[in-house]
Amino acid sequence: MAGPRGGGKPRRPAKGLAKGTSKGAAKGRPSPTRRSPTPGRAPAGGKRRAAPGAPAGKVARGSLGGDQVEGRQAVRELLLAGRRKVREIWLLADVDPSPILEDIVELAEAERVPVREVGRAKFFAEARCEAPQGVLAKAAPLTETLLDDLAVSRPGGPPPFLVAVDGVTDPGNLGALLRSAECAGATGVILPRHRAVHITPTVTKAAAGAVEHLPFAVVGGLPAALQQLSGLGVWVVGLDGEGTTGLWQLPAADGPIALVLGAEGSGLSRLVRQRCDALVGIPLQGSLGSLNVAAAGALACFEVARARA
Amino acid sequence: MAGPRGGGKPRRPAKGLAKGTSKGAAKGRPSPTRRSPTPGRAPAGGKRRAAPGAPAGKVARGSLGGDQVEGRQAVRELLLAGRRKVREIWLLADVDPSPILEDIVELAEAERVPVREVGRAKFFAEARCEAPQGVLAKAAPLTETLLDDLAVSRPGGPPPFLVAVDGVTDPGNLGALLRSAECAGATGVILPRHRAVHITPTVTKAAAGAVEHLPFAVVGGLPAALQQLSGLGVWVVGLDGEGTTGLWQLPAADGPIALVLGAEGSGLSRLVRQRCDALVGIPLQGSLGSLNVAAAGALACFEVARARA
Repeated sequence: MAGPRGGGKPRRPAKGLAKGTSKGAAKGRPSPTRRSPTPGRAPAGGKRRAAPGAPAGKVARGSLGGDQVEGRQAVRELLLAGRRKVREIWLLADVDPSPILEDIVELAEAERVPVREVGRAKFFAEARCEAPQGVLAKAAPLTETLLDDLAVSRPGGPPPFLVAVDGVTDPGNLGALLRSAECAGATGVILPRHRAVHITPTVTKAAAGAVEHLPFAVVGGLPAALQQLSGLGVWVVGLDGEGTTGLWQLPAADGPIALVLGAEGSGLSRLVRQRCDALVGIPLQGSLGSLNVAAAGALACFEVARARA
Repeated sequence: MAGPRGGGKPRRPAKGLAKGTSKGAAKGRPSPTRRSPTPGRAPAGGKRRAAPGAPAGKVARGSLGGDQVEGRQAVRELLLAGRRKVREIWLLADVDPSPILEDIVELAEAERVPVREVGRAKFFAEARCEAPQGVLAKAAPLTETLLDDLAVSRPGGPPPFLVAVDGVTDPGNLGALLRSAECAGATGVILPRHRAVHITPTVTKAAAGAVEHLPFAVVGGLPAALQQLSGLGVWVVGLDGEGTTGLWQLPAADGPIALVLGAEGSGLSRLVRQRCDALVGIPLQGSLGSLNVAAAGALACFEVARARA
């Protein structure tokens, strides 16, 4: 997008890419040792269990989604991140050439991912989001991370910075929120199993690759999960129109924190609100009564980023 | 959602190509001795003229759009604001009842606006946005405001807080940006006549009523308009990945200011960048290289709101 990206933001190098020169500024990004889960640790509540053969600290459930990735940035980031198996890339046959599509093809070749050119009818029968930009990828689904693992600081890493989503049903909003959260340095996302949209192709498109970098915990009930986080020393902050504290006075953002964002329209549910350690509101200056949830989420996430800078 | 910013292919402003008045980055802020515009003065370039009978400071052109408003919040806000003629409301016949739809019908009755219940086929043939939520309105188009008028402080009002859009082509992004801008207290919006989307039904839906409250100037060329604003004492700040100043150090946000947001993907154009008094970037903490333009815009707009609070 608009380039509002911070001056001097290092872009990680395209790993294993032979022809890497077009991949840009590529300073070395610290190797992303994002999770250091305790092997074999029992998940909270004993409800979810790591499947046999699943990576330590992961649970294989399949409900999280993410197995179809759409849009140019999202597909490129899927390949760049290299964190999950990519089965194939579909390219719309008559799409105009562009540097990012060339990147995708190069990356796919380097990783030996088959690239299929398909006609319009077949492509649009398969694509799920509104504007897939002529490219989609079929990949292994995202794996879930245990909630407990999200609450743990990694040695040398920042304190946990989590984003919990309470009933956001619009996939474009969820994706946009994930993108902003990742850009702000969030270390994990908590989604309720039932009251929210999961990682659909439209979410992957809007998230522009954020789903490759964010660990996700999927929880049976958000109130219980928030209580669990509180017990683990994470400060749970709900964003709420009725919040008595202004976002600009967000307390303790430099420690372990979970931001809770409510549904479009109805906001935080009552039980979720009760489980928050603090409720903060965004002071509005205009005539409208509310911000879009993705905009509110961007503001809250970058308030944390700012406190930590 | 936002398009790609070419992964790490930095665009360099070709400094020195400008004819004479290149501002480059961050000079000292010009002393805000704004010339109050002479009433009846010809707008810059002499191209736009107030139509006979148009309200003072307005130009009637019809190119701005806004004559079809879609989505529940947008239609309710159109009726609540009462700033332009609403010709009729279309309600999808089989839509579930909801408090906001009841509000809309009540408001329409109070204003004697006809409400038509229409079947699915007819409704969706007319609707233009992806999810019109069962309601659309036909209204008088939005009227344009002269650029000079946007640069003037109203007595007792805040200093001008303008948002200029350089080539944003995604209507969802433009609408989301307008909503955030209005919520942050923006006093006006500048759209280029050719290089950006105008107020389509999809924009109205995403803007959720913001278009009823924001005055819009539509300009032939954004670089010239920014230069004009500078001359009127407005501090012109471009949001740019290569900005040397971080957004959290945004200078002089409590005075007259115009934020300039660039296109998804390519960012600010070279000429626009040259016309900015300062370029600021948003420091990113994650792996992704850029924010969505609407998220970046929300952050920038609320940085101004915060400085003014």
